[in-house]
Amino acid sequence: MYYAGVDIGGKNTKMGIVDDFGVVVSSMEYKTQMERGYDAILLELIENIKSLCEQAGLDFDELSGIGIGVPGIVNSRAGLVMSCANLNWKGVELAGDVKNLTGKECKVCNDANCAALGEQRFGSGRNYKNLVFITLGTGIGSGIIIDGKLFEGLGCAGAEAGHMGIQIESDEVCSCGNKGCWESFISASALVAQTEEAAKKNPDSLLAKMCKEGVSGKTAFLAMNKGDAVAKNVVDRYISYITYGIIGLANILHPQAFVLGGGIANEGATLILPIKSALNAYIDNNGFYPYVDVVGARLGNSAGFMGAAALVM
Amino acid sequence: MYYAGVDIGGKNTKMGIVDDFGVVVSSMEYKTQMERGYDAILLELIENIKSLCEQAGLDFDELSGIGIGVPGIVNSRAGLVMSCANLNWKGVELAGDVKNLTGKECKVCNDANCAALGEQRFGSGRNYKNLVFITLGTGIGSGIIIDGKLFEGLGCAGAEAGHMGIQIESDEVCSCGNKGCWESFISASALVAQTEEAAKKNPDSLLAKMCKEGVSGKTAFLAMNKGDAVAKNVVDRYISYITYGIIGLANILHPQAFVLGGGIANEGATLILPIKSALNAYIDNNGFYPYVDVVGARLGNSAGFMGAAALVM
Repeated sequence: MYYAGVDIGGKNTKMGIVDDFGVVVSSMEYKTQMERGYDAILLELIENIKSLCEQAGLDFDELSGIGIGVPGIVNSRAGLVMSCANLNWKGVELAGDVKNLTGKECKVCNDANCAALGEQRFGSGRNYKNLVFITLGTGIGSGIIIDGKLFEGLGCAGAEAGHMGIQIESDEVCSCGNKGCWESFISASALVAQTEEAAKKNPDSLLAKMCKEGVSGKTAFLAMNKGDAVAKNVVDRYISYITYGIIGLANILHPQAFVLGGGIANEGATLILPIKSALNAYIDNNGFYPYVDVVGARLGNSAGFMGAAALVM
Repeated sequence: MYYAGVDIGGKNTKMGIVDDFGVVVSSMEYKTQMERGYDAILLELIENIKSLCEQAGLDFDELSGIGIGVPGIVNSRAGLVMSCANLNWKGVELAGDVKNLTGKECKVCNDANCAALGEQRFGSGRNYKNLVFITLGTGIGSGIIIDGKLFEGLGCAGAEAGHMGIQIESDEVCSCGNKGCWESFISASALVAQTEEAAKKNPDSLLAKMCKEGVSGKTAFLAMNKGDAVAKNVVDRYISYITYGIIGLANILHPQAFVLGGGIANEGATLILPIKSALNAYIDNNGFYPYVDVVGARLGNSAGFMGAAALVM
């Protein structure tokens, strides 16, 4: 059977037609153009799904359902987008509206949760029924899978591990109102700030030289790989921030695996192995076996729409 | 039907015969005497269950099962006590041994998890299918109920929220190997240390005077109620530590309720209302409704054995 998965982003919308085995038979990406408003976005979205069906040689009637991921607070049980700052949506009955316009079953969910489900069904999490997915992007997204199903909690706000506080004695107040949120230590933006700070303090370092040509989440890793000790310090500290939160989550949830996605996770083993080894040394010390796997996400930007499709499988 | 519930503690063992409605038809408490070793403890435990049946006018054959809570790492699926420092047990097949000796179905579980289940089935959590239970005792115990069932994670180590780190830049290393564990801020022992520190810094305060007669987890609350500002500061800060971790847990799990047990929770509304109001102000700010309840546990020392009995219901 075939399903449409849609990942609505603040900038771009990605979508694809996916079968039960996770084969993407057609896909596309286009600008969301949020300024056009809810109705126009919705109609375009449905038109685009129809074109994707055509591209794949499918009749629209052959589609078994439509799943949609939205970057905001979504009550997935009610099919309601409670709020989505990026798109300026509030209290929108997205699932019901899509169903009325297409006759298809529609489910909606938080975008990070969709990506978590995508990785669990078709990506790096395929061997695991219990996992925590974390995206190290501009911000932090996270999703929790328990017994093969998305765990969203009461408000379906979507397992916001990025707002778990890891530094109570902090002066930095997060937009959420909390302080010392994990996100403010481990997001790509946080890593950029940490890199800039180290470069400033060590103006003669290779890192400082490289920073002059612009700073991204990759800069510290690049400088470290060229042998810069200041950069290695930045990376080590950044990794210890990730590990600290992961140990906290392991104490609460003890999943089979943590799956790390987002731009920074492209650093691969350099990032992931130290986290995995620190986590399992901790488990060793406390005897709450089995060990927990830590792996990189595999589906990249497709995780969101593939997971959205999995909502209606 | 009738079930035996047993709560083995490092010092005392509590047990009771409980029916499906949570009525305790007979119960007892006795010294665990761990120095006698596993076999002797086990045989005495079974003898005591038999006497409890007699006391209740029940035939031992009428007992439908035996549930046991143990203060350690328990693989509840395998019925195995992986390790229990208090009793010096390691890799003990408790459930299997009880079954062999009695012919009864037996389940074992971490003691805090049993207490969580007890409160959810028969105590303050009765209205909630999704809750997080936290005991504010000498140490911190916690349990998570999802969809009316205990959630234990892969290793069944038992939802150890006390070892979620809330202060990454901390020098204090916990026995678990982590630093800045929530437990080191909110346990009764932590509150005693916070009280003593404040008394030392403010030798003329009422708090300091009261501390001379001995310090417990109640001292700061008592002095605050008598109008002492230093004590109020200690209590406010202590409550903010609890709230900080609860907001972290709400971001991850968003349960319907937090149930607070243990000695400190006896402070009642003084402790609970500020936490509840801060948590729901946070939810308001972020729009991930519904609100979350915060309530005090109701079953006291009976929660453990009642929850243990619920394991086999």
